[in-house]
Amino acid sequence: MVLTEVLILLHFLKELPYFSAMIRVIILGAGNVAQHLFTAFYEHKSVEVVQCYNRKGKRLHPNQKENTITQDLNTLKEADVYILAVSDDAIEEVSNLLPFNNKFIVHTSGSVPMNTLNSNHRRGVFYPLQTFSEDTVVDFASIPFCLEAEYEENMIFLKKLTSTLSKKIYEVSSEQRNVLHVSAVFVNNFTNHLFSIANDICNNYNIPFEILRPLVLETAQKATKMNPDLAQTGPAIRNDSKTIKRHLKILTDTTQQEIYKTLTKAIQSKYGKKL
Amino acid sequence: MVLTEVLILLHFLKELPYFSAMIRVIILGAGNVAQHLFTAFYEHKSVEVVQCYNRKGKRLHPNQKENTITQDLNTLKEADVYILAVSDDAIEEVSNLLPFNNKFIVHTSGSVPMNTLNSNHRRGVFYPLQTFSEDTVVDFASIPFCLEAEYEENMIFLKKLTSTLSKKIYEVSSEQRNVLHVSAVFVNNFTNHLFSIANDICNNYNIPFEILRPLVLETAQKATKMNPDLAQTGPAIRNDSKTIKRHLKILTDTTQQEIYKTLTKAIQSKYGKKL
Repeated sequence: MVLTEVLILLHFLKELPYFSAMIRVIILGAGNVAQHLFTAFYEHKSVEVVQCYNRKGKRLHPNQKENTITQDLNTLKEADVYILAVSDDAIEEVSNLLPFNNKFIVHTSGSVPMNTLNSNHRRGVFYPLQTFSEDTVVDFASIPFCLEAEYEENMIFLKKLTSTLSKKIYEVSSEQRNVLHVSAVFVNNFTNHLFSIANDICNNYNIPFEILRPLVLETAQKATKMNPDLAQTGPAIRNDSKTIKRHLKILTDTTQQEIYKTLTKAIQSKYGKKL
Repeated sequence: MVLTEVLILLHFLKELPYFSAMIRVIILGAGNVAQHLFTAFYEHKSVEVVQCYNRKGKRLHPNQKENTITQDLNTLKEADVYILAVSDDAIEEVSNLLPFNNKFIVHTSGSVPMNTLNSNHRRGVFYPLQTFSEDTVVDFASIPFCLEAEYEENMIFLKKLTSTLSKKIYEVSSEQRNVLHVSAVFVNNFTNHLFSIANDICNNYNIPFEILRPLVLETAQKATKMNPDLAQTGPAIRNDSKTIKRHLKILTDTTQQEIYKTLTKAIQSKYGKKL
């Protein structure tokens, strides 16, 4: 009983610095993720963005106070977490340039391993799995956050910080995050390229792409409700070689034809049919 | 003046049979499109589904009256339009088997030319450009309808009928519809296959696919708001060969690797970069 009580007390004390006071955050970087994070934290009462660093001294938000912006890493203040929302290539370098040790630093990348960060620090990852545009308002509440931390106490803190933005919190290792990132390339980058091809085909024949928009949305919504394998339809899975041939004739662009053939073959091979 | 008045009167008389009374529809077929159309018309006061034909005598809706179902084409009643919501392969055959001439008949296919229908009839196409599932409620109001008709007066009628379901009405030729259909294969069938691959990759590493759902939805929503070319991001367009190599190592399935390489190459070639 006594031991249990001591453990509870220790646990309480360990978490106390984080939970009793405002969480102090410093954001490094000036890209979309940095800006959207600043805006989200800015509106939150229990988080204070103490300072932002970027090379050009750019404001992340019109309301950001001038004295919270710095272009000099040597003037960085004290914070509970330093969020390196910089490009993948810059993560290692920026972490090496930090003029202090043993602070909790995280990056926001989907593909960079946690241990790319300088080991002088307590390291972590704070990866919002979403595509960000400059002009779009981001609703963080619906965005999954993939978290990683070297130390359990930092993970507890990171979950607390994340919970101010979103309920979708996942502990994800660097290896799993890499897998998620390649999956994200399929559902975002490659999917968007298919939309871009459809847009090109429609333009070639003076057909408004808007006719396809409801189909684009329904296709995505379906995949969030059912296993995509069960939603597969079309000439490939029907083995409808007549339609496939007619489609290939419409596509005069050889790259479009190659993509059509590769994906048709893949669908047929997955569902047990052959060209 | 007199001529104008006569023309107006003639125009009025021509349209009168359609607009003054209930529109009488007969649906042939028992698939998803037939069922969803029946349900939509069933709830609409100005349209009466006089009869439905399918080989098995299947009800299209639990509330459908038994005496409005037939398995025998020879018992087909009089209607303003006969909608052949049958599979692509059956359209020609069913149109040949109709035991009357010179009626207005339409099919609902994206890829079959209008003139596949038997020329004894006044022909048309009534193609709802959407993916239909058996269990999902369909909101026709947001679905684009691609219409085609041999005769102007049938087109006027078809637009009137369609307007009871949707405001998104497009006059689309058989050739344009074919182009839309191949575009639909890209944004629906192929996109869904990319979702299916991402699902497989996640399953292989015991990562819940649900983490990717918000990204799936946002990717689609973005494409409905901006030109997909402007939304393109990722390692391919960044020419990030380090990440591309790492991704290809994660993909152990050769088909997945081939799709990754083909789409990466296509993105790089479209946006002026080379592997």
